[in-house]
Amino acid sequence: MASKKRINAGIIGLGRAGQMHLKNLLTIPEINIVQVSDIFVDKLADQLNFMGITNQTRDYMDILNNPDIDTVFIFTSTDMHEEMVTAAANAGKNIFCEKPLSMSPDEQASLNVLKAVRDNNVKLQIGFNRRSDPQFDSIHQQVVSGTIGTPQVVKITSRDPEVTPHNIIKRIGGLLFDFTMHDFDMARFMMGSDITEVYAQAGRLVDPGLAELNDYDTAIINLKFANGAFGLIDNSRRAVYGYDQRVEVFGSEGMLKAENVSGSTVELYNADNEIKKNPKPAFQQRYKPAYIAEMRKFVDSILNDAPLAATGKDVIMAQRAANAAQKSIDTGLPQKVDTNFQL
Amino acid sequence: MASKKRINAGIIGLGRAGQMHLKNLLTIPEINIVQVSDIFVDKLADQLNFMGITNQTRDYMDILNNPDIDTVFIFTSTDMHEEMVTAAANAGKNIFCEKPLSMSPDEQASLNVLKAVRDNNVKLQIGFNRRSDPQFDSIHQQVVSGTIGTPQVVKITSRDPEVTPHNIIKRIGGLLFDFTMHDFDMARFMMGSDITEVYAQAGRLVDPGLAELNDYDTAIINLKFANGAFGLIDNSRRAVYGYDQRVEVFGSEGMLKAENVSGSTVELYNADNEIKKNPKPAFQQRYKPAYIAEMRKFVDSILNDAPLAATGKDVIMAQRAANAAQKSIDTGLPQKVDTNFQL
Amino acid sequence: MASKKRINAGIIGLGRAGQMHLKNLLTIPEINIVQVSDIFVDKLADQLNFMGITNQTRDYMDILNNPDIDTVFIFTSTDMHEEMVTAAANAGKNIFCEKPLSMSPDEQASLNVLKAVRDNNVKLQIGFNRRSDPQFDSIHQQVVSGTIGTPQVVKITSRDPEVTPHNIIKRIGGLLFDFTMHDFDMARFMMGSDITEVYAQAGRLVDPGLAELNDYDTAIINLKFANGAFGLIDNSRRAVYGYDQRVEVFGSEGMLKAENVSGSTVELYNADNEIKKNPKPAFQQRYKPAYIAEMRKFVDSILNDAPLAATGKDVIMAQRAANAAQKSIDTGLPQKVDTNFQL
Amino acid sequence: MASKKRINAGIIGLGRAGQMHLKNLLTIPEINIVQVSDIFVDKLADQLNFMGITNQTRDYMDILNNPDIDTVFIFTSTDMHEEMVTAAANAGKNIFCEKPLSMSPDEQASLNVLKAVRDNNVKLQIGFNRRSDPQFDSIHQQVVSGTIGTPQVVKITSRDPEVTPHNIIKRIGGLLFDFTMHDFDMARFMMGSDITEVYAQAGRLVDPGLAELNDYDTAIINLKFANGAFGLIDNSRRAVYGYDQRVEVFGSEGMLKAENVSGSTVELYNADNEIKKNPKPAFQQRYKPAYIAEMRKFVDSILNDAPLAATGKDVIMAQRAANAAQKSIDTGLPQKVDTNFQL
Repeated sequence: MASKKRINAGIIGLGRAGQMHLKNLLTIPEINIVQVSDIFVDKLADQLNFMGITNQTRDYMDILNNPDIDTVFIFTSTDMHEEMVTAAANAGKNIFCEKPLSMSPDEQASLNVLKAVRDNNVKLQIGFNRRSDPQFDSIHQQVVSGTIGTPQVVKITSRDPEVTPHNIIKRIGGLLFDFTMHDFDMARFMMGSDITEVYAQAGRLVDPGLAELNDYDTAIINLKFANGAFGLIDNSRRAVYGYDQRVEVFGSEGMLKAENVSGSTVELYNADNEIKKNPKPAFQQRYKPAYIAEMRKFVDSILNDAPLAATGKDVIMAQRAANAAQKSIDTGLPQKVDTNFQL
Repeated sequence: MASKKRINAGIIGLGRAGQMHLKNLLTIPEINIVQVSDIFVDKLADQLNFMGITNQTRDYMDILNNPDIDTVFIFTSTDMHEEMVTAAANAGKNIFCEKPLSMSPDEQASLNVLKAVRDNNVKLQIGFNRRSDPQFDSIHQQVVSGTIGTPQVVKITSRDPEVTPHNIIKRIGGLLFDFTMHDFDMARFMMGSDITEVYAQAGRLVDPGLAELNDYDTAIINLKFANGAFGLIDNSRRAVYGYDQRVEVFGSEGMLKAENVSGSTVELYNADNEIKKNPKPAFQQRYKPAYIAEMRKFVDSILNDAPLAATGKDVIMAQRAANAAQKSIDTGLPQKVDTNFQL
Repeated sequence: MASKKRINAGIIGLGRAGQMHLKNLLTIPEINIVQVSDIFVDKLADQLNFMGITNQTRDYMDILNNPDIDTVFIFTSTDMHEEMVTAAANAGKNIFCEKPLSMSPDEQASLNVLKAVRDNNVKLQIGFNRRSDPQFDSIHQQVVSGTIGTPQVVKITSRDPEVTPHNIIKRIGGLLFDFTMHDFDMARFMMGSDITEVYAQAGRLVDPGLAELNDYDTAIINLKFANGAFGLIDNSRRAVYGYDQRVEVFGSEGMLKAENVSGSTVELYNADNEIKKNPKPAFQQRYKPAYIAEMRKFVDSILNDAPLAATGKDVIMAQRAANAAQKSIDTGLPQKVDTNFQL
Repeated sequence: MASKKRINAGIIGLGRAGQMHLKNLLTIPEINIVQVSDIFVDKLADQLNFMGITNQTRDYMDILNNPDIDTVFIFTSTDMHEEMVTAAANAGKNIFCEKPLSMSPDEQASLNVLKAVRDNNVKLQIGFNRRSDPQFDSIHQQVVSGTIGTPQVVKITSRDPEVTPHNIIKRIGGLLFDFTMHDFDMARFMMGSDITEVYAQAGRLVDPGLAELNDYDTAIINLKFANGAFGLIDNSRRAVYGYDQRVEVFGSEGMLKAENVSGSTVELYNADNEIKKNPKPAFQQRYKPAYIAEMRKFVDSILNDAPLAATGKDVIMAQRAANAAQKSIDTGLPQKVDTNFQL
């Protein structure tokens, strides 16, 4: 049924994201949840008790100071990442954290976090969950193994079902730094090569009010890679038909394509049409296998020294692409991306 | 996160099926697993302890005698169903049990079990898991709501990836009584009407050795329904491309069709072909959402008096169709099916 | 561009079917249309002249007596086939004719026609157009070449978009002899084996008025083949979503499946659904490639002695299956089919 | 069968493209082919006679001087377009011609041709055949009719199966001016709006020898439209899996998508994979319905004054986008496109 080594985990942050992750973590027997923290943890007490999680605290430092805990999962909003990851590293805990590591556009802040991780010799896995999506991971592996020869063009379509509320955008960052950053990482992951140049155009075709946040809802992006290949990304904050996540890699010996994951295989044929109901799964459902898989990989890395699903370097490289895209939109010109990485 | 009413469950039988069900049950917070039993439970002690299930016994009567338990899940092989369900009913427990209720071809044995359930006023849900498959349930609901007008023809394709080992067939029953019985139930469920006539042909095209068990590996079956509609079932015990489960309902105003659930959306286009890798999910993966959904419905029925997903009558009616199919194969003639049901 | 051998053709019958075939024949440069006949040819004079077909007659005997013509295409209704094919054979012409060769349920009439063909040493190709459909022909060839190992089960779904008008049914025959006959032939073609047993059920679920013609609109049919394999056919005279023609062959090493040919690849994703417009191609469009391909094969057989796409034996064997199905419906019992064929 | 008005046509150029078009034209009864010309017409004499086209000449001026001809179809290579279209216009003939109208990068040459067309009051249809593809035309019509609300992003994938031989590239122009020009036109057609800005990147990932021709085999292109929308094009000269032509339009109320047209619906399921044979139709087969439909529209425009499928303005606008893309590649900078059009 299950192996017997286990990690002893503390969870920091039980907002919407944290609650979703918690349910997924409960399905992994190798994760023993020792303690949870959230500033509003009192409101969740009954439900947490019901799940058998009785050690609850409002102060995340209780988690970091708990000697029974070897690993922390940080699910708080982006503006807390820098402080919390650094403190967790200094407390000697292995760390899972969502991207990015800092709200600061200057990458130095993130690099400082990574140095703390390195100096304390702990593991840090970044929540680039799409790398662990079974479809995308399969494409990645097939590209790596040469199934389609030399990869030449990667194309990523990534659309959200609804515009994120403006107050949340303020806390987690705009389109490029929150949403598209996943696509920059996916592009690198698929190509096995670093992005060297970015040209981006963006608009407010859905929600003109985003101008107040200096943010956008629509973007198209050209990429150039160190290996000479090209990439295309297109983003929208509102696809009325639901979350839309597709990847295509074209190479010298073929093409790999992952269509959007549909919620149903049922087809209705009537007098006018062939219809598939569109259950519009939100990201929590769409990427549930990915969320569980990335946690399993993290566990496997801690227990068996397997590779991490996504590293600190990965988040820095994606951030550089996002910065270049922002500058490209601001200037109307293509921008180079630095591929050197030294901690 | 989750409601706070709960059932207190005992699990009987932790063989292959029981272990699969146990993992699924652990994801449902409303199910509190109080105690488990299996004649080989000692071998599972470590793993069960790891899951936090420390109350373990070899004797299923300990479960039935445990006053803290209100509901039992019976996952033993078919030859134990009759005795165990009767005993559980007499012990006043709600019961989940896989079909059929008895190895006896004579339905009187099953009817006696159902009488014990009725007399003790407990709930019994039968493990016709496919009724809770999201695809098939969606078709059922659309047929019921009139989306395709009057249903006229139901077609079911049901193929296993590999021939079940002969020693297991001996314990759980042959093709018609183990495998096709699901399809008979599905046909009734889809049409909302009872089967009135069956014509079946069967062969040993895969494994001639099944002759020793008087069993078959291939069958095609014609059905007639009380509402005048028709049905077609085709079965094979070995589809080299994997488990194949499809349903189609054709009606006066359209058609509903559920294609087989594929394990991947990734397509490879190369010089000769368009290829989808075929990960061949076994029934445990294919029907995982169904297994969890049927358990949720059972819980909902106990806690909130919602309807059961499948009842004792359902198993009797499917069994009659299986008996008629067997007689049709033996005689070469179509057979009527009695639709009266009185307990 | 094109080879230079040519056949000199006469066309008999320019009703709806004949006009469709004529347009297809005009696209084949090896067919030189010398003369056409139809009892209402006067009404078509302008259009035929426009096409450059100026030699027109009301009397089909003018075609048979025309020494410049070596090949005749008979597109009249079924009740004329027996007389016309016999006369054409006696006139020494190669013959293309739609099935069946006679309205008589007794196969002796058809056998007499075939004897005239044999005695006059002319070619006769039967219009089993579906054999030349690129999809179905590809399945046939792959089955023959062993791609799926030993074929075990063939499944054919064949549904018309609308009930044929009753006055036409009177002239061309009922469901089994007009419509299902194509499926019986397809079943033999796919399996490479003769049908040995038929069990059929039929109903009037769409048009109860068909009772006056002793005809049906819905049928499900079980087949047994000489090679031990099985078959399933399901028919309806009215699919509101349009013409539906599918074939599946399941074998020991895999499955081949041809989904219905859709009129479009355009998909619309909106807030509720994924929709494919359903242009409902009629049989003329659906099978246009097949109609042209069967004519090319006929030409190739005449000019280069290639095999005929469908022979007189094929029509007799399909007719026997149709007769057995009729008898099965009448008696409620399965019926054997004679596989001996001696002219 | 067919209407009785007719155009009297002369065909100029019977190379590979001309022969393909000729076969398609022969299926349209309203086109009466009076005379054909080609400098190598002698080699085709037998085949043309076989088709009943006996009036053959080496000199295209014979066509233009033939008073029985009202319409000319020009299928010669690009370097002859400027001279021939001008001469045909001056001879008062309606003209069908492939794009572009001139080899000159300066659009003045093309504008001069269009002025001749205007001054002689004849019709000129450009061979932007993809506008008449049933799939793409359906998307265009649905976008126009508001099915997906306001269009926001158009995406076009266009890949050739093989690198065009270098000597042909010299005669017909490089990637942008021969191949991508279709995509620029398609983008305008889909969006119903002019292209205002182009950013392009290109490489030689397939055939480095193209450097000698200053040409490319791979390109990715960003577009901005007058209506504020965006576009993405990706091109390759060699997709090993065959010709790949896809279009997607994303809008405020949904998405329309045309997948690549596959040559077969037959699927093979075996032990490892689900496989669709990839018959790799070349452009002649892929766009056959489009080639015939564009000719029907041209005929309809001449006989019934229906709109032309593609006009002189359309070719100029596509050419400007191609010029901007070339300049973008040369400079590494995005380029504006002039949308004013005055003849």
